[in-house]
Amino acid sequence: MKVNVFKVTFQRYLTMVEQYLAQLLQDKDTLNQSMSYSLCGGGKRIRPVLALGSAEAVGGDVERVLPAAVALELIHTYSLIHDDLPAMDNDDYRRGRLSNHKVFGEANAILAGDALLTYAFELLADPGVGQPERQLRIIRAVAAAAGKDGMVGGQVADMAGEGKTLNLDEIEKIHTRKTGALIKASVQLGGILAGGTEQQVKALTDYAQALGLAFQIKDDILDVAGNSAILGNGKSAGSDVRQGKATYVSLLGLKGAEHQLHAQILKAQAALKPLDEGAIFLSDLAYYIEHRQH
Amino acid sequence: MKVNVFKVTFQRYLTMVEQYLAQLLQDKDTLNQSMSYSLCGGGKRIRPVLALGSAEAVGGDVERVLPAAVALELIHTYSLIHDDLPAMDNDDYRRGRLSNHKVFGEANAILAGDALLTYAFELLADPGVGQPERQLRIIRAVAAAAGKDGMVGGQVADMAGEGKTLNLDEIEKIHTRKTGALIKASVQLGGILAGGTEQQVKALTDYAQALGLAFQIKDDILDVAGNSAILGNGKSAGSDVRQGKATYVSLLGLKGAEHQLHAQILKAQAALKPLDEGAIFLSDLAYYIEHRQH
Repeated sequence: MKVNVFKVTFQRYLTMVEQYLAQLLQDKDTLNQSMSYSLCGGGKRIRPVLALGSAEAVGGDVERVLPAAVALELIHTYSLIHDDLPAMDNDDYRRGRLSNHKVFGEANAILAGDALLTYAFELLADPGVGQPERQLRIIRAVAAAAGKDGMVGGQVADMAGEGKTLNLDEIEKIHTRKTGALIKASVQLGGILAGGTEQQVKALTDYAQALGLAFQIKDDILDVAGNSAILGNGKSAGSDVRQGKATYVSLLGLKGAEHQLHAQILKAQAALKPLDEGAIFLSDLAYYIEHRQH
Repeated sequence: MKVNVFKVTFQRYLTMVEQYLAQLLQDKDTLNQSMSYSLCGGGKRIRPVLALGSAEAVGGDVERVLPAAVALELIHTYSLIHDDLPAMDNDDYRRGRLSNHKVFGEANAILAGDALLTYAFELLADPGVGQPERQLRIIRAVAAAAGKDGMVGGQVADMAGEGKTLNLDEIEKIHTRKTGALIKASVQLGGILAGGTEQQVKALTDYAQALGLAFQIKDDILDVAGNSAILGNGKSAGSDVRQGKATYVSLLGLKGAEHQLHAQILKAQAALKPLDEGAIFLSDLAYYIEHRQH
């Protein structure tokens, strides 16, 4: 039987991430429990996997960068907890389970998010995940990607755009900040901490730029085509449509969105050229993202 | 006329901090405005002042550590915005002005807090505020002080304690996490980034430990004795009493609390001995905190 190298590698990264996450929040108090509830409640772990894949693509040691890679998942998780709050998207469910505030209450959910975000930076500064100057560069890059000019700013822009008719350029700008920036920071984290050259880091960044867009287009497609049981982002299927949000599908049609998705995947894969064979996993990952069912 | 060296130094630090803060959030979008509204809306700036005073106490350059010192104020401000939310303390006013969510709405207030916390770590990783290993050590220390085992954890414990009868030991534990930890991290930030010896950092840490407690006792005293117009923490006077919270005053009486306050101030000042003349400002600051009227 032919071994699927991509799946084996993905599983290896996933196991590393899950094991690290599982031992992170052992205390039994409410705060640790609520952080753990959301952090260990599933998810594709795309950001840490991208970081580990990028570290290996430049010939680095994945065990060494693991704490920093996991920090990306803490940031992603905090953003989901806060997004689900009644004052924000008011979602009762996430990944098929009750959202954090439905279980622990609003105040605890806000604080669990705050604590996850804070803990992420403690992990990014973990001694030994990389050469100190590189670590500081990554902390700046991750903070910029997650903050006012990146993810948080994108969320504000997204809320401000609700009910308005946005064009393709405008929704692309929002997505670039809301999800694209942290995906870009994820590959940079792996590439830079593991000692990649500037040319390699540039290739990874170009890859992530196209991949981030592809990821969002696929999300929009799944929102229309998928169903709530398998939709990985945990949103009910069709929720974007119900909220009257402009999506790639509403603007381009299903066929047009699929065409655009494929174009971004090809672009992502082409960007990896300078990394040669080291980047096979990342290239396969792009294929996986195009064809994922949730 | 005799020049008050303490006041001149305090004013010098304060001017540096205010000028740095004023140029930080220039963009005119909602997010920058809401961050700026809370960040530049007054406050004693105790944490950055402590950091600058500590840097100078060990013979360091205050200009150099300024971005990192200011990061402490961003963290403090984010915590106030989130504390004021309806799901938390539900406070409509802060420092005599409408609280962030009353002006910008709940969703924007949550996100403004998130963005301030994130931005703080970007500033802590600013190139050149200190030798890179020291910077990473400070990022870990600040994250630990602000996160689940520090400030956020203290807030959760504080909420869990509401309506219960806490003893002195229990409220001291809560305060140590909720406010004490970040005050301790503030002096460490200045002392360590500016290259202080371990003995000097130890002296600063002991000082901050006693000072943090003193700060809280004074807050409790002002909550009873003060009035809403001058109360610097922006709470209405007597709000702790109305919320049925155990305070140093409710447990020790006003005289007992004042006695305890004075004891902590003396302890803080004694801890500074190894720093000799370099620590005169910090010693005077302890006196100032004991006698502040808001």
